[in-house]
Amino acid sequence: MPDTIINRRDLEFQVFEVLDTDALTTRARYADHTRETFVAALDTAHTIATEKFAPHNRKADANEPLFDGQRVTMIAEVKEAVQAFSDAGLIAASHDYELGGMQLPETIAQACLSLFKSANVATASYPGLTIANANVISRFGSPVQKKKYLPALLSGRFFGTMALTEPQAGSSLSDITTTAAPNPDGTYSIRGNKIFISGGDHELTENIVHLVLAKIPGGAPGVKGISLFIVPKFLVNDDGATGPRNDVTLTGLIHKMGWRGTTSTMLSFGEKGQCIGELVGEPHKGLSYMFHMMNEARIGVGMGAVMLGYRGYLAALDYARGRPQGRAPGAKNALEPQVKLIEHADVRRMLLAQKAYVEGGYGLCLYTSWLVDEQSTGETETARHEAGLLLDLLTPVAKSWPSQWCLEANNLAIQVHGGYGYTREYSVEQFYRDNRLNPIHEGTHGIQALDLLGRKIMMENGAALELLSRHMHDSIVLASAYEQLQPHARALKAAFADIQNTVQHIKSALADDAVLGLANASVFLESFGHVVIAWIWLRHAVAAAEGLAKNNPVDADFYQGKLRVCRWFYQWELPKTEAQNKLLRSLDDSTLTMEAAWF
Amino acid sequence: MPDTIINRRDLEFQVFEVLDTDALTTRARYADHTRETFVAALDTAHTIATEKFAPHNRKADANEPLFDGQRVTMIAEVKEAVQAFSDAGLIAASHDYELGGMQLPETIAQACLSLFKSANVATASYPGLTIANANVISRFGSPVQKKKYLPALLSGRFFGTMALTEPQAGSSLSDITTTAAPNPDGTYSIRGNKIFISGGDHELTENIVHLVLAKIPGGAPGVKGISLFIVPKFLVNDDGATGPRNDVTLTGLIHKMGWRGTTSTMLSFGEKGQCIGELVGEPHKGLSYMFHMMNEARIGVGMGAVMLGYRGYLAALDYARGRPQGRAPGAKNALEPQVKLIEHADVRRMLLAQKAYVEGGYGLCLYTSWLVDEQSTGETETARHEAGLLLDLLTPVAKSWPSQWCLEANNLAIQVHGGYGYTREYSVEQFYRDNRLNPIHEGTHGIQALDLLGRKIMMENGAALELLSRHMHDSIVLASAYEQLQPHARALKAAFADIQNTVQHIKSALADDAVLGLANASVFLESFGHVVIAWIWLRHAVAAAEGLAKNNPVDADFYQGKLRVCRWFYQWELPKTEAQNKLLRSLDDSTLTMEAAWF
Repeated sequence: MPDTIINRRDLEFQVFEVLDTDALTTRARYADHTRETFVAALDTAHTIATEKFAPHNRKADANEPLFDGQRVTMIAEVKEAVQAFSDAGLIAASHDYELGGMQLPETIAQACLSLFKSANVATASYPGLTIANANVISRFGSPVQKKKYLPALLSGRFFGTMALTEPQAGSSLSDITTTAAPNPDGTYSIRGNKIFISGGDHELTENIVHLVLAKIPGGAPGVKGISLFIVPKFLVNDDGATGPRNDVTLTGLIHKMGWRGTTSTMLSFGEKGQCIGELVGEPHKGLSYMFHMMNEARIGVGMGAVMLGYRGYLAALDYARGRPQGRAPGAKNALEPQVKLIEHADVRRMLLAQKAYVEGGYGLCLYTSWLVDEQSTGETETARHEAGLLLDLLTPVAKSWPSQWCLEANNLAIQVHGGYGYTREYSVEQFYRDNRLNPIHEGTHGIQALDLLGRKIMMENGAALELLSRHMHDSIVLASAYEQLQPHARALKAAFADIQNTVQHIKSALADDAVLGLANASVFLESFGHVVIAWIWLRHAVAAAEGLAKNNPVDADFYQGKLRVCRWFYQWELPKTEAQNKLLRSLDDSTLTMEAAWF
Repeated sequence: MPDTIINRRDLEFQVFEVLDTDALTTRARYADHTRETFVAALDTAHTIATEKFAPHNRKADANEPLFDGQRVTMIAEVKEAVQAFSDAGLIAASHDYELGGMQLPETIAQACLSLFKSANVATASYPGLTIANANVISRFGSPVQKKKYLPALLSGRFFGTMALTEPQAGSSLSDITTTAAPNPDGTYSIRGNKIFISGGDHELTENIVHLVLAKIPGGAPGVKGISLFIVPKFLVNDDGATGPRNDVTLTGLIHKMGWRGTTSTMLSFGEKGQCIGELVGEPHKGLSYMFHMMNEARIGVGMGAVMLGYRGYLAALDYARGRPQGRAPGAKNALEPQVKLIEHADVRRMLLAQKAYVEGGYGLCLYTSWLVDEQSTGETETARHEAGLLLDLLTPVAKSWPSQWCLEANNLAIQVHGGYGYTREYSVEQFYRDNRLNPIHEGTHGIQALDLLGRKIMMENGAALELLSRHMHDSIVLASAYEQLQPHARALKAAFADIQNTVQHIKSALADDAVLGLANASVFLESFGHVVIAWIWLRHAVAAAEGLAKNNPVDADFYQGKLRVCRWFYQWELPKTEAQNKLLRSLDDSTLTMEAAWF
């Protein structure tokens, strides 16, 4: 029997009480929806995730996909699971009715997807990548391309990938060398090698649609010469039928520490000079298109990290409630029965931390999904623009914070289990291994830090940070109505002022010396992330205080939990930012003045 | 070709320049030794570790020991390696000449052992456990037992284990249920089940000597009723020859996330009522004997954690020096070649952190080994007593700090490698998996925290802390002679005063309420640990400054590195303790007032 995949009460609290998704149903795009249709979608996802995804999570980890030089094979449960996902219409969850979609808000669609990530992150990544791939074609593809590829992708007949990384150019996309030579018929001949392509080969679907970054000869060097191509495994006729094999070759599977159920591939394009690609949009604009997919994927990575942490937390909680072990300090009578693990202060510390990290991270990722809805359907142009600004600002945090702290939650989940947690008989060691990928892919921690400090904080002359400040202020005002939240409201105000002060220092430095100004960007990312999560927790606490005021005894324990974890975060975690900000303001140059020869 | 296993310059710096082990050669026990004999022992260990242990580290991970219901089999390289270890006399390294030992100081013996832990922690654990086992028998065994078992253990003809843990009593030894019924011939009949027994079965040696905790019927409940027994796999005649099989059964191997090369076993004692054990020392004093082994094992765990971190750091450093990737911020010219990873500030941050964690942790573990030497051979009774006090105080730190921060070093080593670090083609993912055991075994992080705060800080009315304060003061005085170290000297003084102040607050609380006083013991362990490592780094910096003053250009880079990493630790890490101490002084009761139902 697999572990529980979610605290459903928390999910609905976040979606309905904190984010008020009911309000979205007044918007034209979601007019057919109600709370009930949202809950029905969540129920469907919950059932399929529990019944089709969770049961083979460990089996897929222990039985990696195999490549015999010709075909990739994997355990049969993966295909059954992704088929059920596709059949339920979940790939098209947020797409238009006319494309067979459900026109669900992104918030609900992402909440649905989160359940699959909790149940089985490796299997969920196949349809997850397909969703992101289809979104790019939907947004930037030509009408012909949309007709050719979208119905097949959205129905799960084809799956999709994103093929960016090359062996010699990991984080440095400007150094990719894959080329795309124009053919007389308007197609391009693709030639090059890609690495770490998730879902890059398999027989789960009739076809695989790769979105490939390549350079058209004669373009500018660096990122300005990158274009985006659709490169299917099998060529596709204009009517959408699958044609002959394209010249895309699997050269090998990559064996990883975790996330073993997903094929990670090395692909060779055009070994025989016969690899056909179709240009998406205009030449040399590929990176900006891909960034659309990548921003979505980054939030998806954050959500995946959250859900691995969440699943581990639920397992640890269950274990701590059930396992008798030891006695309280001072209780030396060995004839008394042992108490449950959860009675120990240090075990509660680890559970409080996990709950704070995973529910806080979940709150941030769901909030960014809500911003996507607001960006596309907000009631005024200002609202839509501001949602976009905030989304840009928070994307690196939504990617990185859960990748760091929900991995730490997995670490603590192992620790709660003691020696058993280190064995492969329990699930938590796999979550820890799976989650270790998240600080790396879709832009490493360090890349996110440069994006946040070098670009997002500075864009539009600091407008996004100013906007976040206003939103925080609103929350602070709401929280101040509750006496028990007033200390937190004051603490958040002070912590954010400290961040703003820090940004001023860094801005001055940046003007003189970009290298020094950005040298400690990772520390800024981590400090800023903690303040953002403190804000998310304050929002949760306000909603919990409102809920408690309604005096529903069924929910009292749940709301008390929210209030106490908020308090915990403000007392245990937020104060860590003081030392970080002080370090940042000192413009410490340790990393620059340490010479390579001194290591 | 396996990675480098050590920075030999650092090892010799630590052993000879910081700890001045040359001075030990003036003591009677080590009178035959010189710097040259110490270096020769290190050379021998270095060669065997590199040639016999490192090459099969990954192979043993990928090919776990198998149990077919009768026999345990494993890859042949393990036996070759441990045989080479035994043949070099390394099991008896610190034992008396008359036992075939080398009478090496513990500092040198542990430095030798550290090289094997770096090379292959799983294979090294077989002789490592044997050393600890032999030390218990040497100290507490009867003359007959010593004659029967010691020569075989010290020569590697038998290997040893420690069998404490039972399925229903993980950290709570008072709840073990294994019994030992006295037989008319003076032996005992052992009956019970043990779990997580490392090295509990194999065919590496002719016999396996288990040291087993069990209760003699009629004894006190709890830990005061625990006795210690020698329980060999094969009975041993008084002349040391191996006799018939004892009734000890392997009921299964445990499959772990890492450390896969070491058998982790479930053992059943006395299934047929025929398991013979010999009492060690007096009845009901087993736990105190076992703690002798356990304290040694705890420092050994810390050293293992250090070496896994060290090996990962060296791999990351090598990768960062060799791999071209990206360009500096602002350097946008894609036609320029990419720079090496080590040129990026964020990569240097990760390398600085790793160097600080692993060399600092190594310093602490080697210092505790030096305290063992001082405790046994110190020149005055006061010196010996004080060394024992400091050793008691620092043992939980030497166990926990590396287990936390050198695991973090492994995390960073993966991150430096990017996507490649997450694959099983590179070594760093294995180090990370292996190291995750260390915060669990030989007393979890939380258990160490209770030991430190509840026992060690409070013992002899705070004498150990007072003693540490004096030693820190001495280092502060030495450091103050160097202008560049003066800020660190002041910072250490302030940080230690903050710890002492915190201890006073907790002491008052403890007097009223042990549960509240100890509730945040883990935070204390972590804060105290950082201050101890800051002190270790200051000692290194003083030695480096002295070295630099000698103007040897060959070593200038090495010494500069030490000075810069010390500075890094004081600017980046030590300030974290402020928020921790503030939290501790607030006697935050979050973990006690959070009700189980609120999670």
